[in-house]
Amino acid sequence: MVYRLIVAYIGAPFAGWQRQPDAVTVQQTLEEALAEIVGREVRVVAAGRTDAGVHARGQVVHLELDRSLEIGALVTGANHFLPESVRVLEAARVRDDFHARKCALAKEYRYRLTRTRVPTPFDAPFEVMVDPRLDLERLRGATAALPGEHDFSAFALAGGSHGQPRRRVLAASWHEEGPVIELSIIGDGFLRGMVRSLVGTLLEIGTQRREPEELATLLEGGCRSDAGPTAPAHGLTLEQVFYAPGWEVSERDDV
Amino acid sequence: MVYRLIVAYIGAPFAGWQRQPDAVTVQQTLEEALAEIVGREVRVVAAGRTDAGVHARGQVVHLELDRSLEIGALVTGANHFLPESVRVLEAARVRDDFHARKCALAKEYRYRLTRTRVPTPFDAPFEVMVDPRLDLERLRGATAALPGEHDFSAFALAGGSHGQPRRRVLAASWHEEGPVIELSIIGDGFLRGMVRSLVGTLLEIGTQRREPEELATLLEGGCRSDAGPTAPAHGLTLEQVFYAPGWEVSERDDV
Repeated sequence: MVYRLIVAYIGAPFAGWQRQPDAVTVQQTLEEALAEIVGREVRVVAAGRTDAGVHARGQVVHLELDRSLEIGALVTGANHFLPESVRVLEAARVRDDFHARKCALAKEYRYRLTRTRVPTPFDAPFEVMVDPRLDLERLRGATAALPGEHDFSAFALAGGSHGQPRRRVLAASWHEEGPVIELSIIGDGFLRGMVRSLVGTLLEIGTQRREPEELATLLEGGCRSDAGPTAPAHGLTLEQVFYAPGWEVSERDDV
Repeated sequence: MVYRLIVAYIGAPFAGWQRQPDAVTVQQTLEEALAEIVGREVRVVAAGRTDAGVHARGQVVHLELDRSLEIGALVTGANHFLPESVRVLEAARVRDDFHARKCALAKEYRYRLTRTRVPTPFDAPFEVMVDPRLDLERLRGATAALPGEHDFSAFALAGGSHGQPRRRVLAASWHEEGPVIELSIIGDGFLRGMVRSLVGTLLEIGTQRREPEELATLLEGGCRSDAGPTAPAHGLTLEQVFYAPGWEVSERDDV
Protein backbone atom coordinates (compact mmCIF):
# COMPACT_ATOMS: atom_id res chain seq x y z
CA MET A 1 0.00 0.00 0.00
CA VAL A 2 1.36 3.43 -0.94
CA TYR A 3 0.20 6.54 0.91
CA ARG A 4 0.63 10.18 0.03
CA LEU A 5 0.84 12.83 2.75
CA ILE A 6 0.66 16.61 2.53
CA VAL A 7 3.01 18.02 5.13
CA ALA A 8 3.57 21.55 6.47
CA TYR A 9 6.57 22.57 8.54
CA ILE A 10 8.41 25.56 9.94
CA GLY A 11 11.99 25.51 8.67
CA ALA A 12 13.86 27.07 11.59
CA PRO A 13 14.14 24.02 13.90
CA PHE A 14 15.49 21.74 11.16
CA ALA A 15 18.68 21.17 9.19
CA GLY A 16 16.53 20.83 6.07
CA TRP A 17 14.43 17.98 4.74
CA GLN A 18 16.95 15.26 4.08
CA ARG A 19 18.23 12.81 6.70
CA GLN A 20 21.70 13.58 8.02
CA PRO A 21 23.77 11.64 10.49
CA ASP A 22 24.29 14.42 13.05
CA ALA A 23 21.42 16.86 12.67
CA VAL A 24 17.66 16.89 13.18
CA THR A 25 15.87 16.97 9.83
CA VAL A 26 12.21 16.96 8.83
CA GLN A 27 12.54 13.60 7.06
CA GLN A 28 13.89 11.89 10.16
CA THR A 29 11.30 13.57 12.41
CA LEU A 30 8.44 12.43 10.17
CA GLU A 31 9.83 8.91 9.76
CA GLU A 32 10.15 8.52 13.51
CA ALA A 33 6.56 9.67 14.10
CA LEU A 34 5.25 7.26 11.45
CA ALA A 35 7.32 4.43 12.91
CA GLU A 36 5.52 4.94 16.22
CA ILE A 37 2.20 4.32 14.49
CA VAL A 38 3.09 1.31 12.37
CA GLY A 39 5.55 -0.28 14.80
CA ARG A 40 8.41 -0.62 12.35
CA GLU A 41 10.84 1.53 10.34
CA VAL A 42 9.26 3.75 7.70
CA ARG A 43 10.96 5.54 4.82
CA VAL A 44 9.38 8.61 3.23
CA VAL A 45 10.26 10.24 -0.10
CA ALA A 46 9.54 13.95 -0.58
CA ALA A 47 8.70 15.92 -3.70
CA GLY A 48 11.19 18.66 -2.79
CA ARG A 49 14.25 18.33 -0.58
CA THR A 50 14.06 21.71 1.10
CA ASP A 51 17.26 23.19 2.53
CA ALA A 52 17.90 24.11 6.17
CA GLY A 53 15.55 26.86 7.34
CA VAL A 54 13.17 26.62 4.35
CA HIS A 55 9.46 26.24 5.22
CA ALA A 56 6.77 24.11 3.59
CA ARG A 57 3.01 24.57 3.43
CA GLY A 58 2.36 21.80 0.93
CA GLN A 59 5.30 19.39 0.87
CA VAL A 60 4.19 16.04 -0.57
CA VAL A 61 5.70 12.73 0.50
CA HIS A 62 4.96 9.10 -0.21
CA LEU A 63 5.54 6.03 1.89
CA GLU A 64 4.96 2.32 1.42
CA LEU A 65 3.36 0.24 4.14
CA ASP A 66 2.85 -3.50 4.25
CA ARG A 67 -0.62 -3.09 5.71
CA SER A 68 -3.62 -0.89 5.20
CA LEU A 69 -4.11 2.08 7.53
CA GLU A 70 -7.25 4.11 8.06
CA ILE A 71 -6.56 7.59 6.65
CA GLY A 72 -7.98 9.53 9.59
CA ALA A 73 -5.93 7.47 12.03
CA LEU A 74 -2.79 8.06 9.94
CA VAL A 75 -3.23 11.85 10.11
CA THR A 76 -4.19 11.96 13.78
CA GLY A 77 -1.55 9.42 14.80
CA ALA A 78 1.28 11.15 12.94
CA ASN A 79 0.37 14.54 14.41
CA HIS A 80 0.22 13.02 17.87
CA PHE A 81 3.87 11.97 17.62
CA LEU A 82 5.16 14.96 15.60
CA PRO A 83 6.47 18.16 17.19
CA GLU A 84 4.25 21.25 16.73
CA SER A 85 6.55 22.56 13.99
CA VAL A 86 5.52 19.73 11.64
CA ARG A 87 1.93 18.80 10.72
CA VAL A 88 0.47 16.17 8.41
CA LEU A 89 -2.42 18.11 6.86
CA GLU A 90 -3.87 15.37 4.66
CA ALA A 91 -3.33 11.75 3.71
CA ALA A 92 -4.60 9.57 0.88
CA ARG A 93 -3.98 6.10 -0.40
CA VAL A 94 -2.52 6.30 -3.92
CA ARG A 95 -1.69 3.86 -6.72
CA ASP A 96 1.38 1.69 -6.11
CA ASP A 97 3.37 3.42 -8.86
CA PHE A 98 3.06 6.87 -7.24
CA HIS A 99 6.39 8.56 -6.44
CA ALA A 100 6.23 11.97 -4.75
CA ARG A 101 9.23 13.39 -6.63
CA LYS A 102 9.19 11.57 -9.95
CA CYS A 103 5.45 11.99 -10.55
CA ALA A 104 5.41 15.70 -9.63
CA LEU A 105 4.49 17.80 -12.66
CA ALA A 106 5.49 21.09 -11.06
CA LYS A 107 6.17 22.79 -7.76
CA GLU A 108 5.38 26.26 -6.49
CA TYR A 109 7.80 28.09 -4.21
CA ARG A 110 7.15 31.47 -2.66
CA TYR A 111 9.69 33.96 -1.41
CA ARG A 112 8.52 36.69 0.96
CA LEU A 113 10.13 40.10 1.41
CA THR A 114 9.05 43.05 3.51
CA ARG A 115 9.76 46.75 3.18
CA THR A 116 8.63 47.45 6.73
CA ARG A 117 11.04 49.02 9.18
CA VAL A 118 10.30 46.56 11.99
CA PRO A 119 8.66 43.21 11.12
CA THR A 120 6.31 41.98 13.87
CA PRO A 121 7.31 38.86 15.83
CA PHE A 122 4.46 37.08 14.00
CA ASP A 123 5.92 37.77 10.55
CA ALA A 124 9.68 38.05 11.13
CA PRO A 125 10.37 34.29 10.99
CA PHE A 126 8.90 34.13 7.46
CA GLU A 127 10.00 37.29 5.68
CA VAL A 128 13.23 39.01 4.75
CA MET A 129 13.74 42.76 5.10
CA VAL A 130 14.60 44.71 1.96
CA ASP A 131 15.38 48.30 1.18
CA PRO A 132 11.99 50.12 1.02
CA ARG A 133 13.28 51.97 -2.05
CA LEU A 134 13.25 48.70 -3.99
CA ASP A 135 11.81 49.37 -7.46
CA LEU A 136 9.00 46.83 -7.79
CA GLU A 137 8.30 47.62 -11.43
CA ARG A 138 11.96 47.08 -12.33
CA LEU A 139 11.83 43.79 -10.36
CA ARG A 140 8.71 42.75 -12.26
CA GLY A 141 10.28 43.70 -15.59
CA ALA A 142 13.31 41.49 -14.94
CA THR A 143 11.16 38.62 -13.62
CA ALA A 144 9.33 38.49 -16.94
CA ALA A 145 12.45 36.83 -18.41
CA LEU A 146 12.02 33.78 -16.16
CA PRO A 147 9.21 31.73 -17.74
CA GLY A 148 10.53 29.22 -20.27
CA GLU A 149 13.31 26.63 -20.32
CA HIS A 150 16.75 27.91 -19.34
CA ASP A 151 20.18 26.78 -18.20
CA PHE A 152 20.16 27.62 -14.47
CA SER A 153 23.85 26.77 -13.83
CA ALA A 154 24.47 30.29 -12.51
CA PHE A 155 21.76 29.71 -9.90
CA ALA A 156 22.74 26.25 -8.61
CA LEU A 157 24.35 25.66 -5.23
CA ALA A 158 26.84 22.83 -4.99
CA GLY A 159 25.47 19.66 -3.42
CA GLY A 160 22.35 19.17 -5.51
CA SER A 161 21.94 15.77 -7.12
CA HIS A 162 20.90 17.23 -10.46
CA GLY A 163 22.54 16.02 -13.64
CA GLN A 164 21.73 18.61 -16.25
CA PRO A 165 21.09 22.26 -15.36
CA ARG A 166 18.11 22.97 -17.62
CA ARG A 167 14.76 23.57 -15.95
CA ARG A 168 11.44 25.00 -17.14
CA VAL A 169 9.81 27.86 -15.25
CA LEU A 170 6.07 27.85 -15.89
CA ALA A 171 5.18 31.11 -14.14
CA ALA A 172 6.84 33.73 -11.98
CA SER A 173 5.15 36.80 -10.51
CA TRP A 174 5.39 39.26 -7.62
CA HIS A 175 2.40 39.96 -5.38
CA GLU A 176 2.25 43.10 -3.28
CA GLU A 177 0.25 43.49 -0.06
CA GLY A 178 1.09 46.50 2.05
CA PRO A 179 4.81 46.43 2.83
CA VAL A 180 5.09 42.75 1.85
CA ILE A 181 6.10 41.60 -1.63
CA GLU A 182 6.13 37.92 -2.47
CA LEU A 183 7.51 36.02 -5.44
CA SER A 184 5.54 33.02 -6.64
CA ILE A 185 7.55 30.78 -8.95
CA ILE A 186 6.19 27.60 -10.49
CA GLY A 187 8.54 25.25 -12.32
CA ASP A 188 8.87 21.65 -13.43
CA GLY A 189 12.01 21.31 -11.34
CA PHE A 190 14.41 23.39 -9.28
CA LEU A 191 18.17 23.09 -8.82
CA ARG A 192 19.49 23.28 -5.28
CA GLY A 193 19.37 26.92 -4.08
CA MET A 194 17.82 28.08 -7.36
CA VAL A 195 14.95 30.19 -6.02
CA ARG A 196 17.12 31.86 -3.39
CA SER A 197 19.87 32.80 -5.85
CA LEU A 198 17.27 34.03 -8.35
CA VAL A 199 15.83 36.23 -5.57
CA GLY A 200 19.32 37.45 -4.61
CA THR A 201 19.96 38.42 -8.22
CA LEU A 202 16.53 40.01 -8.73
CA LEU A 203 17.07 42.10 -5.58
CA GLU A 204 20.33 43.44 -7.03
CA ILE A 205 18.33 44.44 -10.10
CA GLY A 206 15.48 45.95 -8.05
CA THR A 207 17.92 48.08 -6.04
CA GLN A 208 19.82 49.38 -9.10
CA ARG A 209 22.97 47.33 -8.45
CA ARG A 210 22.56 45.27 -11.62
CA GLU A 211 20.93 45.87 -15.00
CA PRO A 212 17.65 44.00 -15.75
CA GLU A 213 19.09 42.70 -19.03
CA GLU A 214 21.78 40.73 -17.20
CA LEU A 215 19.24 38.17 -16.03
CA ALA A 216 18.56 36.98 -19.59
CA THR A 217 22.30 36.44 -20.12
CA LEU A 218 22.61 34.51 -16.86
CA LEU A 219 19.73 32.27 -17.94
CA GLU A 220 21.86 31.04 -20.86
CA GLY A 221 24.32 29.46 -18.40
CA GLY A 222 27.28 30.64 -16.35
CA CYS A 223 28.93 30.05 -13.00
CA ARG A 224 27.38 30.67 -9.64
CA SER A 225 29.69 33.63 -9.06
CA ASP A 226 28.22 35.45 -12.07
CA ALA A 227 24.82 35.76 -10.36
CA GLY A 228 23.78 37.52 -7.15
CA PRO A 229 24.00 36.22 -3.58
CA THR A 230 21.80 33.48 -2.15
CA ALA A 231 18.87 35.11 -0.32
CA PRO A 232 18.20 33.88 3.27
CA ALA A 233 16.42 30.54 3.72
CA HIS A 234 13.68 31.79 6.05
CA GLY A 235 11.97 33.82 3.29
CA LEU A 236 11.36 30.67 1.22
CA THR A 237 8.36 28.31 1.40
CA LEU A 238 7.54 25.24 -0.68
CA GLU A 239 3.92 26.17 -1.30
CA GLN A 240 2.46 23.27 -3.26
CA VAL A 241 3.25 20.37 -5.57
CA PHE A 242 1.20 19.61 -8.67
CA TYR A 243 0.31 16.11 -9.89
CA ALA A 244 -1.89 14.70 -12.60
CA PRO A 245 -5.36 13.79 -11.32
CA GLY A 246 -6.29 10.16 -10.73
CA TRP A 247 -3.54 8.94 -8.39
CA GLU A 248 -5.87 8.52 -5.43
CA VAL A 249 -7.32 5.13 -4.62
CA SER A 250 -10.48 4.89 -2.54
CA GLU A 251 -9.90 3.06 0.72
CA ARG A 252 -12.73 0.74 -0.21
CA ASP A 253 -10.78 -0.52 -3.25
CA ASP A 254 -8.59 -2.29 -0.69
CA VAL A 255 -11.03 -4.87 0.34
CA MET B 1 10.17 63.44 28.67
CA VAL B 2 7.36 60.93 28.10
CA TYR B 3 7.56 58.43 25.25
CA ARG B 4 4.88 56.19 23.81
CA LEU B 5 5.78 52.85 22.24
CA ILE B 6 3.69 50.48 20.12
CA VAL B 7 4.73 46.95 21.01
CA ALA B 8 3.95 43.56 19.45
CA TYR B 9 4.59 40.25 21.15
CA ILE B 10 3.89 36.54 20.95
CA GLY B 11 2.18 35.41 24.14
CA ALA B 12 3.47 31.86 24.52
CA PRO B 13 6.90 32.59 26.05
CA PHE B 14 5.51 34.90 28.74
CA ALA B 15 3.54 34.73 31.97
CA GLY B 16 1.50 37.68 30.73
CA TRP B 17 2.24 41.39 30.66
CA GLN B 18 2.57 42.31 34.30
CA ARG B 19 5.75 41.95 36.34
CA GLN B 20 5.81 38.96 38.67
CA PRO B 21 8.49 37.93 41.13
CA ASP B 22 9.16 34.42 39.75
CA ALA B 23 8.13 34.42 36.09
CA VAL B 24 9.25 36.04 32.86
CA THR B 25 6.74 38.66 31.75
CA VAL B 26 6.60 41.05 28.83
CA GLN B 27 6.77 44.10 31.08
CA GLN B 28 9.99 42.94 32.73
CA THR B 29 11.51 41.93 29.39
CA LEU B 30 10.75 45.32 27.86
CA GLU B 31 11.93 47.24 30.94
CA GLU B 32 15.22 45.36 30.94
CA ALA B 33 15.82 46.08 27.24
CA LEU B 34 15.07 49.79 27.75
CA ALA B 35 17.35 49.89 30.81
CA GLU B 36 20.20 48.69 28.58
CA ILE B 37 19.72 51.74 26.35
CA VAL B 38 19.29 54.44 28.94
CA GLY B 39 21.67 53.02 31.54
CA ARG B 40 19.24 53.07 34.45
CA GLU B 41 16.00 51.45 35.60
CA VAL B 42 12.95 52.14 33.44
CA ARG B 43 9.28 51.56 34.31
CA VAL B 44 6.70 51.13 31.56
CA VAL B 45 2.91 51.34 31.88
CA ALA B 46 0.76 49.42 29.37
CA ALA B 47 -2.71 50.17 28.03
CA GLY B 48 -3.81 46.55 28.55
CA ARG B 49 -2.37 44.06 31.03
CA THR B 50 -2.66 40.96 28.85
CA ASP B 51 -2.82 37.57 30.57
CA ALA B 52 -0.35 34.71 30.14
CA GLY B 53 -0.32 33.42 26.57
CA VAL B 54 -2.24 36.37 25.09
CA HIS B 55 -0.61 38.04 22.07
CA ALA B 56 -0.39 41.72 21.15
CA ARG B 57 -0.05 43.40 17.78
CA GLY B 58 -0.59 46.94 19.01
CA GLN B 59 0.00 47.12 22.77
CA VAL B 60 0.72 50.72 23.77
CA VAL B 61 3.03 51.65 26.65
CA HIS B 62 4.42 54.87 28.01
CA LEU B 63 7.62 55.55 29.88
CA GLU B 64 9.23 58.60 31.40
CA LEU B 65 12.88 59.41 30.81
CA ASP B 66 14.98 62.15 32.32
CA ARG B 67 16.67 62.86 29.02
CA SER B 68 15.68 63.14 25.39
CA LEU B 69 16.23 60.15 23.12
CA GLU B 70 16.23 60.09 19.35
CA ILE B 71 13.13 58.09 18.29
CA GLY B 72 14.89 55.95 15.68
CA ALA B 73 17.60 55.03 18.18
CA LEU B 74 14.95 54.14 20.77
CA VAL B 75 13.24 51.69 18.40
CA THR B 76 16.45 50.16 17.06
CA GLY B 77 18.08 50.00 20.46
CA ALA B 78 15.11 48.38 22.19
CA ASN B 79 14.78 45.76 19.44
CA HIS B 80 18.48 45.04 19.68
CA PHE B 81 18.12 44.03 23.33
CA LEU B 82 14.67 42.41 23.09
CA PRO B 83 14.10 38.73 22.29
CA GLU B 84 12.58 38.01 18.86
CA SER B 85 9.17 37.39 20.44
CA VAL B 86 8.84 41.09 21.37
CA ARG B 87 9.24 44.04 18.96
CA VAL B 88 8.90 47.76 19.43
CA LEU B 89 7.15 48.74 16.19
CA GLU B 90 7.00 52.50 16.69
CA ALA B 91 7.93 55.19 19.17
CA ALA B 92 6.92 58.80 19.61
CA ARG B 93 7.48 61.53 22.12
CA VAL B 94 4.16 62.52 23.71
CA ARG B 95 2.88 65.23 26.05
CA ASP B 96 3.93 64.84 29.69
CA ASP B 97 0.36 64.11 30.81
CA PHE B 98 0.02 61.07 28.51
CA HIS B 99 -0.81 57.80 30.31
CA ALA B 100 -1.10 54.65 28.18
CA ARG B 101 -3.99 53.17 30.19
CA LYS B 102 -5.81 56.20 31.55
CA CYS B 103 -5.81 58.10 28.25
CA ALA B 104 -6.94 55.13 26.13
CA LEU B 105 -10.38 55.78 24.65
CA ALA B 106 -10.89 52.18 23.55
CA LYS B 107 -9.10 48.92 22.80
CA GLU B 108 -9.67 46.29 20.14
CA TYR B 109 -9.15 42.62 20.93
CA ARG B 110 -9.46 39.81 18.39
CA TYR B 111 -10.16 36.16 19.06
CA ARG B 112 -9.33 33.66 16.34
CA LEU B 113 -10.99 30.29 15.82
CA THR B 114 -10.51 27.72 13.10
CA ARG B 115 -12.82 25.02 11.78
CA THR B 116 -9.96 23.24 9.99
CA ARG B 117 -9.19 19.64 10.89
CA VAL B 118 -5.44 20.22 11.19
CA PRO B 119 -4.14 23.78 11.69
CA THR B 120 -0.76 24.37 10.01
CA PRO B 121 2.27 24.94 12.25
CA PHE B 122 2.19 28.56 11.02
CA ASP B 123 -1.34 29.16 12.32
CA ALA B 124 -1.71 26.76 15.25
CA PRO B 125 -0.04 29.05 17.84
CA PHE B 126 -2.63 31.76 17.14
CA GLU B 127 -5.96 29.99 16.63
CA VAL B 128 -8.23 27.69 18.57
CA MET B 129 -9.94 24.69 16.98
CA VAL B 130 -13.74 24.59 17.09
CA ASP B 131 -16.37 22.15 15.94
CA PRO B 132 -16.78 22.73 12.16
CA ARG B 133 -20.54 22.44 12.64
CA LEU B 134 -20.50 25.71 14.61
CA ASP B 135 -23.48 27.82 13.49
CA LEU B 136 -21.93 31.14 12.51
CA GLU B 137 -25.27 32.89 11.98
CA ARG B 138 -26.42 31.86 15.46
CA LEU B 139 -23.09 33.12 16.81
CA ARG B 140 -23.56 36.43 15.00
CA GLY B 141 -27.13 36.75 16.23
CA ALA B 142 -26.04 36.37 19.86
CA THR B 143 -23.06 38.71 19.41
CA ALA B 144 -25.44 41.49 18.35
CA ALA B 145 -26.41 41.82 22.05
CA LEU B 146 -22.90 42.93 23.01
CA PRO B 147 -22.64 46.58 21.93
CA GLY B 148 -23.72 48.94 24.67
CA GLU B 149 -22.98 49.35 28.36
CA HIS B 150 -23.45 46.20 30.47
CA ASP B 151 -22.57 44.64 33.81
CA PHE B 152 -19.88 42.10 32.88
CA SER B 153 -19.60 40.48 36.34
CA ALA B 154 -20.41 37.07 34.84
CA PHE B 155 -17.41 37.44 32.52
CA ALA B 156 -14.74 38.62 34.97
CA LEU B 157 -11.92 36.42 36.23
CA ALA B 158 -10.75 36.98 39.76
CA GLY B 159 -7.55 38.99 40.07
CA GLY B 160 -8.46 42.01 37.98
CA SER B 161 -8.00 45.38 39.64
CA HIS B 162 -11.35 46.69 38.42
CA GLY B 163 -13.70 48.38 40.84
CA GLN B 164 -17.08 48.37 39.17
CA PRO B 165 -18.08 45.75 36.60
CA ARG B 166 -19.76 47.97 34.00
CA ARG B 167 -18.02 48.38 30.66
CA ARG B 168 -19.12 49.71 27.27
CA VAL B 169 -18.68 47.59 24.15
CA LEU B 170 -18.50 49.84 21.10
CA ALA B 171 -18.53 47.14 18.40
CA ALA B 172 -18.36 43.37 18.14
CA SER B 173 -18.36 41.36 14.91
CA TRP B 174 -17.24 38.03 13.46
CA HIS B 175 -15.14 37.88 10.29
CA GLU B 176 -14.94 34.71 8.22
CA GLU B 177 -12.05 33.76 5.94
CA GLY B 178 -11.99 30.18 4.77
CA PRO B 179 -12.01 27.93 7.83
CA VAL B 180 -11.00 30.82 10.13
CA ILE B 181 -13.52 32.92 12.04
CA GLU B 182 -12.38 35.84 14.10
CA LEU B 183 -14.17 38.01 16.66
CA SER B 184 -13.27 41.69 16.74
CA ILE B 185 -14.44 43.42 19.91
CA ILE B 186 -13.87 47.09 20.63
CA GLY B 187 -14.66 48.46 24.07
CA ASP B 188 -13.82 51.33 26.37
CA GLY B 189 -12.47 48.85 28.92
CA PHE B 190 -12.28 45.14 29.59
CA LEU B 191 -12.46 43.21 32.84
CA ARG B 192 -9.84 40.53 33.41
CA GLY B 193 -10.63 37.48 31.22
CA MET B 194 -13.69 39.20 29.75
CA VAL B 195 -13.10 38.52 26.06
CA ARG B 196 -12.16 34.89 26.65
CA SER B 197 -15.22 34.15 28.78
CA LEU B 198 -17.47 35.95 26.28
CA VAL B 199 -15.98 33.73 23.55
CA GLY B 200 -16.45 30.62 25.69
CA THR B 201 -20.11 31.54 26.21
CA LEU B 202 -20.69 32.47 22.56
CA LEU B 203 -19.21 29.12 21.50
CA GLU B 204 -21.73 27.31 23.70
CA ILE B 205 -24.45 29.27 21.91
CA GLY B 206 -22.93 28.60 18.47
CA THR B 207 -22.81 24.86 19.12
CA GLN B 208 -26.39 24.64 20.45
CA ARG B 209 -25.43 24.10 24.08
CA ARG B 210 -26.94 27.38 25.25
CA GLU B 211 -29.76 29.58 23.99
CA PRO B 212 -28.82 32.89 22.30
CA GLU B 213 -31.18 34.79 24.61
CA GLU B 214 -29.15 33.80 27.67
CA LEU B 215 -26.39 36.22 26.75
CA ALA B 216 -28.64 39.25 27.26
CA THR B 217 -29.52 38.00 30.75
CA LEU B 218 -25.87 37.43 31.62
CA LEU B 219 -25.08 40.98 30.50
CA GLU B 220 -27.29 42.28 33.31
CA GLY B 221 -24.90 40.82 35.89
CA GLY B 222 -24.34 37.43 37.49
CA CYS B 223 -21.55 35.23 38.78
CA ARG B 224 -18.74 33.82 36.72
CA SER B 225 -20.22 30.32 37.02
CA ASP B 226 -23.39 31.41 35.20
CA ALA B 227 -21.46 32.04 31.97
CA GLY B 228 -19.48 29.65 29.76
CA PRO B 229 -15.86 28.54 30.16
CA THR B 230 -12.83 30.76 29.57
CA ALA B 231 -11.57 30.17 26.01
CA PRO B 232 -7.81 29.44 25.62
CA ALA B 233 -5.39 32.36 25.82
CA HIS B 234 -3.52 31.68 22.57
CA GLY B 235 -6.55 32.64 20.43
CA LEU B 236 -6.59 36.19 21.84
CA THR B 237 -4.67 39.22 20.56
CA LEU B 238 -4.69 42.83 21.75
CA GLU B 239 -4.99 44.35 18.29
CA GLN B 240 -4.89 48.11 18.87
CA VAL B 241 -5.50 50.89 21.34
CA PHE B 242 -7.31 54.08 20.42
CA TYR B 243 -6.39 57.58 21.68
CA ALA B 244 -7.52 61.07 20.91
CA PRO B 245 -5.32 62.77 18.31
CA GLY B 246 -2.78 65.38 19.36
CA TRP B 247 -0.73 63.60 22.02
CA GLU B 248 2.42 63.51 19.92
CA VAL B 249 5.11 66.12 20.37
CA SER B 250 7.58 66.83 17.58
CA GLU B 251 11.14 66.03 18.66
CA ARG B 252 12.12 69.54 17.67
CA ASP B 253 9.84 71.00 20.35
CA ASP B 254 12.44 69.74 22.80
CA VAL B 255 15.08 72.28 22.08
